Amino acid sequence: MVDIQSSMPKNPQQAQAEQDAAVKSSLGKIKNKIIVMSGKGGVGKTSTSVNLSIALSKKGHNVGIMDVDLHGPDVPRMLGLDGMPEVNSNHKLNPMRFSDNLKAISIEAFTPSKDDAIIWRGPLKFSAIRQFIGDVDWGDLDFLVIDSPPGTGDEPLTVAQTIKDARAVIVTTPQEVALADVRKSINFCKTVDMNIFGLVENMSGFACPHCNEMIELFGSGGGERTAKQMGIDFLGSIPFDPKVVACGDTGACYQETHSDSAVTKAYAAVADKLSQLL
Amino acid sequence: MVDIQSSMPKNPQQAQAEQDAAVKSSLGKIKNKIIVMSGKGGVGKTSTSVNLSIALSKKGHNVGIMDVDLHGPDVPRMLGLDGMPEVNSNHKLNPMRFSDNLKAISIEAFTPSKDDAIIWRGPLKFSAIRQFIGDVDWGDLDFLVIDSPPGTGDEPLTVAQTIKDARAVIVTTPQEVALADVRKSINFCKTVDMNIFGLVENMSGFACPHCNEMIELFGSGGGERTAKQMGIDFLGSIPFDPKVVACGDTGACYQETHSDSAVTKAYAAVADKLSQLL
Repeated sequence: MVDIQSSMPKNPQQAQAEQDAAVKSSLGKIKNKIIVMSGKGGVGKTSTSVNLSIALSKKGHNVGIMDVDLHGPDVPRMLGLDGMPEVNSNHKLNPMRFSDNLKAISIEAFTPSKDDAIIWRGPLKFSAIRQFIGDVDWGDLDFLVIDSPPGTGDEPLTVAQTIKDARAVIVTTPQEVALADVRKSINFCKTVDMNIFGLVENMSGFACPHCNEMIELFGSGGGERTAKQMGIDFLGSIPFDPKVVACGDTGACYQETHSDSAVTKAYAAVADKLSQLL
Repeated sequence: MVDIQSSMPKNPQQAQAEQDAAVKSSLGKIKNKIIVMSGKGGVGKTSTSVNLSIALSKKGHNVGIMDVDLHGPDVPRMLGLDGMPEVNSNHKLNPMRFSDNLKAISIEAFTPSKDDAIIWRGPLKFSAIRQFIGDVDWGDLDFLVIDSPPGTGDEPLTVAQTIKDARAVIVTTPQEVALADVRKSINFCKTVDMNIFGLVENMSGFACPHCNEMIELFGSGGGERTAKQMGIDFLGSIPFDPKVVACGDTGACYQETHSDSAVTKAYAAVADKLSQLL
């Protein structure tokens, strides 16, 4: 049966009220909302979002990933997902499925060409992020992991204002330039009243594949030191592994193909800490 | 003598017209405007902006660096600059000085605490960037190098709309996730009608400091391949060197302390190509 009412034009106030209700209803079914942030780009924020989500789903939790990095939406590629989300009988969008208990949504799925740039100023981003929450049929989730772009701009601000109980996981590499920006992220969270779950240090140390000697690509230990200085929890260090890069490029699941690696174990340990929230 | 007129309240139209004139006057004295962009963060965009600027200044050109990465302003740290820019007798701000022919401006110089986050939505960013052009006493420059944040958001859009003759240098690392975002940057430039000077591949290969064997941290060759596919010039590859990271952290000048390194030579080669614009 055609739903005539929903196809009638609405006034802006009514449309806004309906979206508010849809956002509230979606969020009510999600136990934990985790926003993965970084001060600086390229520290492995999306790798961390994706690998933490996979580690949580492997522990049996229902997990959704919401990719709000609108200018660089890499979640679908890293998960090996493509195709366009479809509208279901509830008039909501089905998220993309990585597995029975891991779903994802990303602006990438809605752009006709994957190489098109999203040239949006702030207000459009605000609206897109609210639609990712209210118009997507997330269902009951233990964790919604939100992959945000680097920095403290419109996207994390929209998340902070829309999802009042979101907790931040901040990702950094050990070098000082990244740590300086991490301190900005921590102060952002304090300013917008967002709880910080803790700090993850990524790319911390690397074993040469030829001689097996340890190489400090970006220094080491800076993440733990900064967490202590700023009074937030340190969640763990993830070593650098070029195979994570290679898997991310092809959408292969690193944790499946390298289930015994130091990186897989490090993500599982962070997922254990998150599981204690349940 | 006190300039009474300038301290009188202005109407918004008058203030806007004055800023437009100041922006136009500043830009009229700058021969080449180069915006350094990247699709993805952490590919070494700021390292490239800073090192290209130093390489250009070493060739005797007058160079300014304008840091429009408002959420992660790393230019001052990498150049070892601090202090607050002062207003001079022209009622303009003096940029910070790295050397006689290399100056810089960054939002970082105006934040009371270096760890404070800039939590601004788009319109404020637009206004800040225009002030960085019109209210700063750049003088006569051969090159203004503009370090923009990753992605295709408000900051590069503001630059594209304000500086019509800006040319883009796009920085990437060799991995596919970065290259996918580079294609977005290239399409952004086409959409906003900005000329692309070319593509730089950063972190392309790395010699183990212990055994000297080459390691492909992020793969290799992807930058040149993508440039060819997208029909833009390939400007060169910059190897990864942890000493660049260490120098950037402390504000030491890598090109001074490692004047014979492969990285220094690679930046000099890109600077040579830019010099041909003059």
